[in-house]
Amino acid sequence: MAKQYIDLATLKFLLYQVHQLKEVLQYDRYADHDLESIDLFINAVKDFSDQELFPYFQEMDAQPAHYKDGKIIVHPQVGVMMKKGGEMGFISGAFDFKDGGLQLPLMVFTAASYIQDAANNHLPGYTGLTLGAAELIVHFGNAALNQIYTPKMLAGEWGGTMCLTEPQAGSSLSDITTSATPQADGSYHIKGQKIFISAGDHEYVDNFVHLLLARIDGAAPGTKGISLFVVPKKRLDDAGNLVPNDVITAGDFQKLGQKGYCTTHLMFGEGDDCKAWLVGEANQGLKYMFLMMNGARIGVGRGAAAIAMAAYHASLAYAQERPQGRKLTATGKKNPDQAQTLIINHPDVRRMLLLQKVVAEGSLSLVLLASRYQDLIKSVTDETEKERYTLLLEILTPVVKTYPSEMGATAVSNGLQVLGGYGFCSEYVLQQYHRDIRIFSIYEGTTGIQSQDLLGRKVTMKAGKALGYLVEEIAGTLQACATIHDFQPYANKLQQKLKDVQAVLQFLGGFAKTGNYERYLADATLFMELFANIVVAWRWLDIALTAKKALLTNDKTYTEAFYESKVHAMKFYFKYELAKTAGLVESLMDKEVLTIPNEKKVFI
Amino acid sequence: MAKQYIDLATLKFLLYQVHQLKEVLQYDRYADHDLESIDLFINAVKDFSDQELFPYFQEMDAQPAHYKDGKIIVHPQVGVMMKKGGEMGFISGAFDFKDGGLQLPLMVFTAASYIQDAANNHLPGYTGLTLGAAELIVHFGNAALNQIYTPKMLAGEWGGTMCLTEPQAGSSLSDITTSATPQADGSYHIKGQKIFISAGDHEYVDNFVHLLLARIDGAAPGTKGISLFVVPKKRLDDAGNLVPNDVITAGDFQKLGQKGYCTTHLMFGEGDDCKAWLVGEANQGLKYMFLMMNGARIGVGRGAAAIAMAAYHASLAYAQERPQGRKLTATGKKNPDQAQTLIINHPDVRRMLLLQKVVAEGSLSLVLLASRYQDLIKSVTDETEKERYTLLLEILTPVVKTYPSEMGATAVSNGLQVLGGYGFCSEYVLQQYHRDIRIFSIYEGTTGIQSQDLLGRKVTMKAGKALGYLVEEIAGTLQACATIHDFQPYANKLQQKLKDVQAVLQFLGGFAKTGNYERYLADATLFMELFANIVVAWRWLDIALTAKKALLTNDKTYTEAFYESKVHAMKFYFKYELAKTAGLVESLMDKEVLTIPNEKKVFI
Repeated sequence: MAKQYIDLATLKFLLYQVHQLKEVLQYDRYADHDLESIDLFINAVKDFSDQELFPYFQEMDAQPAHYKDGKIIVHPQVGVMMKKGGEMGFISGAFDFKDGGLQLPLMVFTAASYIQDAANNHLPGYTGLTLGAAELIVHFGNAALNQIYTPKMLAGEWGGTMCLTEPQAGSSLSDITTSATPQADGSYHIKGQKIFISAGDHEYVDNFVHLLLARIDGAAPGTKGISLFVVPKKRLDDAGNLVPNDVITAGDFQKLGQKGYCTTHLMFGEGDDCKAWLVGEANQGLKYMFLMMNGARIGVGRGAAAIAMAAYHASLAYAQERPQGRKLTATGKKNPDQAQTLIINHPDVRRMLLLQKVVAEGSLSLVLLASRYQDLIKSVTDETEKERYTLLLEILTPVVKTYPSEMGATAVSNGLQVLGGYGFCSEYVLQQYHRDIRIFSIYEGTTGIQSQDLLGRKVTMKAGKALGYLVEEIAGTLQACATIHDFQPYANKLQQKLKDVQAVLQFLGGFAKTGNYERYLADATLFMELFANIVVAWRWLDIALTAKKALLTNDKTYTEAFYESKVHAMKFYFKYELAKTAGLVESLMDKEVLTIPNEKKVFI
Repeated sequence: MAKQYIDLATLKFLLYQVHQLKEVLQYDRYADHDLESIDLFINAVKDFSDQELFPYFQEMDAQPAHYKDGKIIVHPQVGVMMKKGGEMGFISGAFDFKDGGLQLPLMVFTAASYIQDAANNHLPGYTGLTLGAAELIVHFGNAALNQIYTPKMLAGEWGGTMCLTEPQAGSSLSDITTSATPQADGSYHIKGQKIFISAGDHEYVDNFVHLLLARIDGAAPGTKGISLFVVPKKRLDDAGNLVPNDVITAGDFQKLGQKGYCTTHLMFGEGDDCKAWLVGEANQGLKYMFLMMNGARIGVGRGAAAIAMAAYHASLAYAQERPQGRKLTATGKKNPDQAQTLIINHPDVRRMLLLQKVVAEGSLSLVLLASRYQDLIKSVTDETEKERYTLLLEILTPVVKTYPSEMGATAVSNGLQVLGGYGFCSEYVLQQYHRDIRIFSIYEGTTGIQSQDLLGRKVTMKAGKALGYLVEEIAGTLQACATIHDFQPYANKLQQKLKDVQAVLQFLGGFAKTGNYERYLADATLFMELFANIVVAWRWLDIALTAKKALLTNDKTYTEAFYESKVHAMKFYFKYELAKTAGLVESLMDKEVLTIPNEKKVFI
């Protein structure tokens, strides 16, 4: 197995130098932390991941979570993750002090979670969902709910889940049918089934706290009639003992990847005795859920970015050790008398490795940037500034969720290809990353849904204000390139690509104006690909600029070669990745109207 | 499980109308066959595949081939495939009458194999490798070898393999070290190990015939010292009994996909008693192997094309049954009071399905075209004509191997995405196609190797004659569009894209002229993507033109809707796929020189 799954120097360079954690730390909110204490925390997370996560990664794949006799059997390391994760702040890290958290900047908490994801993506979901469920209780639950559930969850003693999906509704949450019937004591009785419930059951916590969407009897149809409930697996009886709450585990979905991360099917109230407590106000469930959704979607992007990075390191290690074939000589032939060369010396292998590198590091930068905006939203006091960061976060969120998932999968597939036939063999880890990462473009809203969110809501929201702010941010980086002569061509190129985006939006906007919303959104996924590609080009220009400035100022934090490699990667991105936008623009602005006399027959 | 894995009408339309099988049947070589008998054969293969292949597809994945107590355990259906396949001509079909074959056109044999691949890609390799091994004996072996081996192999009683790869050499065949020591009786003793030997051992045939590359003691280093041998698992003793020939099965590689298709590790001559017989002349092994390689590579393309088609049908069936979400109304909102719509009515789902369709059918057309050229090479008597088809086959072969493998994998991933969360679940077949197809861009020379073959050899061979012939063929289709007014814009677009290819070749050629071959070939994989995309655009224009002519001439072989759907798919391809070439051209002609002071440090 590969020995390295991330390069800590790159993570720290991005966190400290590119994304300037110290600026965030200046706010009162983070007065208890400094760069030194944070660096120790990051190192501790890396040590923990080296010892408790990475060594179990392939083993958990070989021993999938499964359903047996009404129970979900998971790898025992899940217990370690919950217990130690609870102790080390992997759940509570970013919660406020007042709620029992460490009040760490999200940038730091994200970096820490990223390390765990890269080490073993089957485990951080167990703590991550507990975090997400606790967050809903903290933000929207009353004091009583908080008192009972939050401390146990932040400590990792009780697990948490999000129960949204139902078999008949899928992504269409407006069609969920799970019912909540009011009881005399103020609680509700729940009846219904939920599927695809990650981390939904296992033996390594004392209880589960399901944050569940249901309809109170008589509620309006559609999304307006959905409420959010706390549904524990075991409820407290009058004597304070945990007793069963009529939540039955009906099965565990067997999957292509992430096999150590259970995906359960839960049945609520089969015996008409499943008690639940309303979170916040009735019929606001979807709103609450979506207020937390940015975090969940950034978490998905983070996981995919981490897998792409781990796969990059695995294939890089192979390419640096495997001799095969020879370099071309001056006559264009290979000389069999020469010793074989390492495959990293073949241009096509280098291209595949660099593709992985720019996707993995570019994705990480995206994720950290989103976390930075989250921190600033919490920290700034000026309302205009707060709105700015809120809108920047809004428009970036679908990109942060989608780019690492989609391009990360492409990157991992290139990593597998680097190994040739061995890449297809179970003995090598690349095929596992290839399977694991495939779910990320489906989790928390598919790429299609994210793309409609981007083009249908985020780009147009507040008359394009979010987009305007983002363009300003990019313009700031372009401006900063002005002083560095050899960066000017890249800045100009990116400037031109931004104009292409404007042209595409103007073209598509014509359809929206005439009420043809279906046509406006039909190619939303292509627009996402175009937009995300350009946003990541901006990230690379920023990364390279930071490195270049370090070189120019003789900053010795990292080696010259380290900084040079970041500038080189930016050039690679512009040559091989950014160029792809040309084709996307051509497709998006193609006037072709694809019709056929009988629409249904198109698939014959 | 999906009920349909191919659309027989589309296969026949491509075989009979687009690729004009009847033209090939006019040659003397195929005088014993007519369209009617061939149609019966195709139908029989489909029936067989429905009954004996498709029903075992998921089962074979769940019960992988594996190594136990020195033996390889495979699914019993392997036995059915070898026996019935032998009887039905799945091995001998395209062999000459004189060699015991049915002398079918390769176009027909390919179509038949394609049906089998689509039904269950784990099984046709067993007969396919037996075919390939027998082909080498028939073409290059002496009468004695032919007498002993060929009939048993064509009947499926003995299995065949290709033993090329060794652990230390991988794709670099010039580095193989397996040795062949001449014996007094004219035979050789073999010593060495071979890995990744598909269909290398199982209990359902009486013997195995390995066609193996080795070096005769004292032979030249590199590819010039490699010879081809027949190495049976059991050899005939003087009494005519089969006795062990010191071929040991050392293991079976466990893999990401194609789990029912064993991938063995074989050891030859561990007891110094492994006898082998030279095929043809000494030191000509690689040449012989490569004379057969076109067939093997087209076979890989065919398999990938078939998986892409099967996955398309599986996701299409799901999309036609699954209700979820609603269409946008005139206000751009969804109306929750409406019933849910089928997901096939969502534009993004349609886009994913059409992407699959154009890749799958375009790939099939490529594969049939290559087979057609193979038939013509065998049939025409005029030497100039023969050279033309030979060169066309040469330049198309890397494309036929690569496009279905690479774009097929993308298509299958889109198919998985159509199913949302269910696509990731083992219960649904899409995740299996996703795993199975991943090997095809590695088999028989990776995409990187095919791309270097295309740009480094095929495009430049005979001063660009092969490319010239291909451009002529494409020009013929463009010419034929001239009479059909609404096809003119597509013909013009393709014409322009061909000019782009010329410009790219001129730009890259500059590097070759100055002896910078490494730079010339560095982006060969991108050139492949560009070139293949344009070749498939030509295939779609040809398919659509054939359909359009059928509509204009009121040809009732298929329904109007059928023909319309092909024209529609061509338009989709031009809008969404052909457009991608713009970005590739931009990358390929980018003057950026990616250097860094210390080349090795680029991956920090």
